[in-house]
Amino acid sequence: MSDDAHSPLVQGDARGLLRMLRLGPPRTRAQIAELTGLARSTVSSRLDGLIASGLVVPAGDELSSGGRPPALLAFNPAARIVLAIDLTATRGAVAVTDLAGSILRTESRELTIAEGPEPVLDWAIAAAKRVLRASGRTRADLVGVGVGLPGPVEHSSGVPTNPPIMPGWNLFDVPAYLRRHFDVPVLVDNDVNILALGEHAVCWPAETDLVFVKVSTGIGAGIISGGRLQRGARGSAGDIGHVRAPLARNASPLPGRDDADLEALSGGPAIARWMSANGSPAQTSRDVLEAGLRGDPVAVQGIRQAGRDLGEVVATVVDLLNPSVVVIGGSVARAGEHLLAGVREVVYGRSTPLATQNLSIVHSQTGSTGGVRGAAIMVIQRVLDEAGEGV
Amino acid sequence: MSDDAHSPLVQGDARGLLRMLRLGPPRTRAQIAELTGLARSTVSSRLDGLIASGLVVPAGDELSSGGRPPALLAFNPAARIVLAIDLTATRGAVAVTDLAGSILRTESRELTIAEGPEPVLDWAIAAAKRVLRASGRTRADLVGVGVGLPGPVEHSSGVPTNPPIMPGWNLFDVPAYLRRHFDVPVLVDNDVNILALGEHAVCWPAETDLVFVKVSTGIGAGIISGGRLQRGARGSAGDIGHVRAPLARNASPLPGRDDADLEALSGGPAIARWMSANGSPAQTSRDVLEAGLRGDPVAVQGIRQAGRDLGEVVATVVDLLNPSVVVIGGSVARAGEHLLAGVREVVYGRSTPLATQNLSIVHSQTGSTGGVRGAAIMVIQRVLDEAGEGV
Repeated sequence: MSDDAHSPLVQGDARGLLRMLRLGPPRTRAQIAELTGLARSTVSSRLDGLIASGLVVPAGDELSSGGRPPALLAFNPAARIVLAIDLTATRGAVAVTDLAGSILRTESRELTIAEGPEPVLDWAIAAAKRVLRASGRTRADLVGVGVGLPGPVEHSSGVPTNPPIMPGWNLFDVPAYLRRHFDVPVLVDNDVNILALGEHAVCWPAETDLVFVKVSTGIGAGIISGGRLQRGARGSAGDIGHVRAPLARNASPLPGRDDADLEALSGGPAIARWMSANGSPAQTSRDVLEAGLRGDPVAVQGIRQAGRDLGEVVATVVDLLNPSVVVIGGSVARAGEHLLAGVREVVYGRSTPLATQNLSIVHSQTGSTGGVRGAAIMVIQRVLDEAGEGV
Repeated sequence: MSDDAHSPLVQGDARGLLRMLRLGPPRTRAQIAELTGLARSTVSSRLDGLIASGLVVPAGDELSSGGRPPALLAFNPAARIVLAIDLTATRGAVAVTDLAGSILRTESRELTIAEGPEPVLDWAIAAAKRVLRASGRTRADLVGVGVGLPGPVEHSSGVPTNPPIMPGWNLFDVPAYLRRHFDVPVLVDNDVNILALGEHAVCWPAETDLVFVKVSTGIGAGIISGGRLQRGARGSAGDIGHVRAPLARNASPLPGRDDADLEALSGGPAIARWMSANGSPAQTSRDVLEAGLRGDPVAVQGIRQAGRDLGEVVATVVDLLNPSVVVIGGSVARAGEHLLAGVREVVYGRSTPLATQNLSIVHSQTGSTGGVRGAAIMVIQRVLDEAGEGV
């Protein structure tokens, strides 16, 4: 991370109060003192710092039984802004958001990630300057830049590591390149972690354990455990594309299928190959999506079976992590209910009752804005919650 | 948890300083101020509270280039004590530990968990009183009781939920029963979570991502991610005994084996059944352990194959969670290197290179004290780190 630990936006002492106001309703100073058990004087000095920074503001008055009503204080998400950059294999989106992750301005276009880092990031930088200008804010308001990339990233340095579909990006110093234009912390992560962060923060903020599974050309997972994104020891947590998937039992085996790497059963190209062999020619995940959307029966059958095979792996993930929400996203998931139906069929039949009792298996709801929202959330959590953590 | 949130041992403000001294070397006040960035006056007032409680003490003097040497301060693990109770299907151990989890006095015996909660806990209470007396400490020094049970536990309430091998224990209020004798917080969890906590704290404290897999009659996992034990949304994380295990490929299938629930392939009774069918009669995990230890070739072959089948599931866990350490424990693992060798063979062959590059797959090193040490660590982390967390 290209972070400046010496001038944090929020003093460590005040992070707890700020989090209470960010995630909860507006409160009076007296309520805050009572809820935290802190001395009134301590609460006051911390709140004064937050008010001076603009992060906390008066929020109208609470109804009172008489006399002068006590002032309510609230988090002010407009105090600062974040730049979010979401890059996929074929598309880029740039947004400026507030500190709640709400999009103020956004711009997107088709692009080819394989053209290499400089042309792609040059577009992102130019677009970022445009959306910044259009939002009426300045770089002085910017607290950080978040970037999602469609491949493995060493999150601590922000550097892609052997990304299979991103020639020219291996070990490219993305943070340094962006910091030439935006002198703030630049955080980079893979697209699935970003999507998990966005989906969790936007749709499921009260859940502590959520797994996001993305199914398109590749298959990967983003894991929220104990309320936090888990990246593992070397940042590769969630790389489930090549786990061995037992063949789903509750379907007659389709020709040419045997237990195999998950992507070889349930990824977009695998479904396309199976469709082609069964009289409905297809090549890419997009072909599969389009055929599924128009109700092609071969596509529907292939996607449903891909969902069952994926479900065998998701069942293991559910037993292992006991999430309350499994979110299925990615282009193959957008082809109607077929993939999700296959996953549900197997997981609810296989995982232990305790693990499935309160489990929701759902489609992604953030849609095409999930990437930029997640990238913004990654920055917001780091800047408001984490810097200085531990002391 | 039966906790008293109103009189924490450590004030929330001071937890960060205490953690620094617990996990690091002794330091001077000036070093602490510099490392934390806190004002000297703030550091002093927090340290004074910790010194008054006995948790922090002077620790000799640092070498100085001249003049009066500045006083070093250190965490004092002897300030308080913890009671740890480790119950398995056939054995109980009780220990009194210091705040570093070091065992001061311990007592253990064979017992039958299936006799029900009252006789088993009555023995534990009597043994606890004996070890407490033998340690020369009093109940006034006690900060909490930690209990490990061989079955599912709702950690928030400390109550066993449908434990298969513990008739009579379902929904029994273990904390209330113990608090009649020890008026401190009583924390309860399943044995595998406890073993993961103990192994992590004792052997791998610098690692943030560790998975403990216990293989005996049943099979279960304890998961440390991001430095914390992860229990999942409903407390059932790690319940991998019934995940579907793909048959290991790198062995000619043994008769009667098909892909199946993991316990049906790799649990002690499954190995015993296979041994019996192959001319070396065995019934229980203990029979398997003993035959393995004396080098019975059928037992060795069966345990090795059980390791490979377990390895197929562990390979998925490794790709999903990217731990730096996988610890294999439980009675079947103690029968020499056979189980571990089978797991290693499959995991290093199957998981992604990024996930296995720095992965250690090792035997449990805490041995028979792992349970009480883990139960103590659970209490220590709660009492010193967590109460008041979030504000």
